[in-house]
Amino acid sequence: MSNKTEDYGKKAVEAHKKYGGKVAIHSKMPLDTQEDLSIAYTPGVAQPCLDISENRELAYDYTNKQNTVAVVSDGSAVLGLGNIGPEASMPVMEGKAVLFKKFADVDAIPIVLSSQNTEEIITAVKMIAPTFGGINLEDISAPRCFEIEKRLKEELDIPVMHDDQHGTAVVTLAGIINALKVTGKKFEDLKVVINGAGAAGMAIIYLLREVGVKQIIMCDSRGIIHKDRGNLTSVKEEVAKITNENQLEGDLEDAVQNTDVFIGVSVPGVLTPDMVRSMNDDPIIFAMANPIPEIMPAEAVQAGARIIATGRSDFPNQINNVLAFPGIFRGLLDARASKLTNKMYIAAAYAIADVVKEPNEDKIIPGPFDEGVAEAVAKAVKKSAIDSP
Amino acid sequence: MSNKTEDYGKKAVEAHKKYGGKVAIHSKMPLDTQEDLSIAYTPGVAQPCLDISENRELAYDYTNKQNTVAVVSDGSAVLGLGNIGPEASMPVMEGKAVLFKKFADVDAIPIVLSSQNTEEIITAVKMIAPTFGGINLEDISAPRCFEIEKRLKEELDIPVMHDDQHGTAVVTLAGIINALKVTGKKFEDLKVVINGAGAAGMAIIYLLREVGVKQIIMCDSRGIIHKDRGNLTSVKEEVAKITNENQLEGDLEDAVQNTDVFIGVSVPGVLTPDMVRSMNDDPIIFAMANPIPEIMPAEAVQAGARIIATGRSDFPNQINNVLAFPGIFRGLLDARASKLTNKMYIAAAYAIADVVKEPNEDKIIPGPFDEGVAEAVAKAVKKSAIDSP
Repeated sequence: MSNKTEDYGKKAVEAHKKYGGKVAIHSKMPLDTQEDLSIAYTPGVAQPCLDISENRELAYDYTNKQNTVAVVSDGSAVLGLGNIGPEASMPVMEGKAVLFKKFADVDAIPIVLSSQNTEEIITAVKMIAPTFGGINLEDISAPRCFEIEKRLKEELDIPVMHDDQHGTAVVTLAGIINALKVTGKKFEDLKVVINGAGAAGMAIIYLLREVGVKQIIMCDSRGIIHKDRGNLTSVKEEVAKITNENQLEGDLEDAVQNTDVFIGVSVPGVLTPDMVRSMNDDPIIFAMANPIPEIMPAEAVQAGARIIATGRSDFPNQINNVLAFPGIFRGLLDARASKLTNKMYIAAAYAIADVVKEPNEDKIIPGPFDEGVAEAVAKAVKKSAIDSP
Repeated sequence: MSNKTEDYGKKAVEAHKKYGGKVAIHSKMPLDTQEDLSIAYTPGVAQPCLDISENRELAYDYTNKQNTVAVVSDGSAVLGLGNIGPEASMPVMEGKAVLFKKFADVDAIPIVLSSQNTEEIITAVKMIAPTFGGINLEDISAPRCFEIEKRLKEELDIPVMHDDQHGTAVVTLAGIINALKVTGKKFEDLKVVINGAGAAGMAIIYLLREVGVKQIIMCDSRGIIHKDRGNLTSVKEEVAKITNENQLEGDLEDAVQNTDVFIGVSVPGVLTPDMVRSMNDDPIIFAMANPIPEIMPAEAVQAGARIIATGRSDFPNQINNVLAFPGIFRGLLDARASKLTNKMYIAAAYAIADVVKEPNEDKIIPGPFDEGVAEAVAKAVKKSAIDSP
């Protein structure tokens, strides 16, 4: 890690100790007099309770369900730290919660779970679901995250999103939308290599296909994923079916030749300058391994990359989930949506891209503090949720 | 219900609609700059995560676990409304949460559950427990509440309290402590009748026994509970064993004759003036059915009651759980307690009683806005938790 990152680590420990965690609650209603108590609590509170018991939909009018999302993790795949367990993942979940509030006025509640068993996680989330207007799954390792999200989407009547998959995919797509504006390339002609077959990589495949990209190859640590490779997990079998039309075999070096876009959701340093040189003109590089990207921006540019994006805030074009998740859930809550679809993700990606009025090499994506990002995303997602629920 | 209560109902509906529920979150850390984000979230947040993964106890230093309690309900026994389900119980749970904050600066998170199955509730609470420093169970119907609380106390390493049982019992005991000061009666001579064999009644029995009351009779809707009555639930079998030494039989009228204290946790109007007249000198009446007590205060006094307490704020001596639960959990969190014992409940009851410097007929118990109640309770519970953990 860089010195700067170590610095932030020290400062973070001090701040977490000083403030004692990050999330606090407060009352939206006054509680200063006996009359206030009689309205917020007994005896008055009985009436909104009765009303909701007669019409469950009123929960959205009278309770926090209208504005509250659970940020749920089992601590199995936290940042680059791996399986550190529920208690240790809590600072990340609290961080997520306060970003939800900061950027989209969503009240997010961190919930960490004592089991990493798929069925137990599904049961627990279903049990607590009536409390919330949406569920943000976070830092749950693949492949369990796929099954957990799929089942919860089927079995709950509120939207569910695993942010490590779809948040990353939405912001990546937003960046690519603007990278195409800068380079003049088109989705239908685009050749894309995705390196890393984890949660984010899968979601990126689905979104790219949905916007018309036909030529996608995915690599994992063993190289190109193709039907005849053997020993494929069911997830990778699916990848082999829907990507790599010509069933190319080989390693990452073979994969990137004559492609337009490299998307790394993998490990530091795996993309060499020679590989960048082997790509088509105007290569677009998304090197999102954190904190050290698949290739450093200076190296990539020197090797001919036209556009380089990373996960880091100290380089241009940071692919940061915070551009997506607050606005996505803001829009879902505003629409009282019961589902979350790829259409909504794509609407969110275009909304993020459109915030950058004149994209260029150094600015294909807004920064987290740029004005209007969450609002634009919320508006687009809300519209999509209402138009095609 | 009185017109006043109906009034509060209307005002409560308006307020709940206007504010959109009651609980909101905010960040305790600043989030205004890129540097702030790098400390509250990535990359800095990785360091507190790593520290906790090496020493789980640090969760209490670096996260909200130190100050956060879950308010958990299945909506099966809400106020006087009965089994109205999770969504409809939410206004009560949110009310509880903001009272926690108001009176003891505890961050309480309302969680309502989609199942009323005992085992599923136990599993769900165990799953979410790593998030919290304590669990406040709320409005779960008897007898399931006994099993759920017992099992969670055994299986979790954070304190668990079903407030409908122990909150009510603690405040009732506090009232009785001061009622004895006013009347000069003593625990060891006291004859007590408890009418109502629900959650609160059971907990009151246990606390009264623990402070030295030997003569207790409990009645339910079928009359006095005794060993030979037949068809007793396991809970009532236990009651028959530990109360009613002489195995008296009969109905409430028989039970109250020549007793000192009537404690009603039952239904409106069941205690008649004649029954009060049949009690020993200086009868002490706790008529806590809500909103209409077992006997109205004016009637009770006319029939000779020396002290009358109810659950209502518009009469003197309101037995209100809000005197207990905020301070109890404040003390538990401050002590980082892993358990909650009867000793701590009794310490809390004496602390509440001691806030009233000179108890008299009209003031045996503090009001919710009296200064220093939660602080005194927190101090007593913290001390008890540290002295005998």
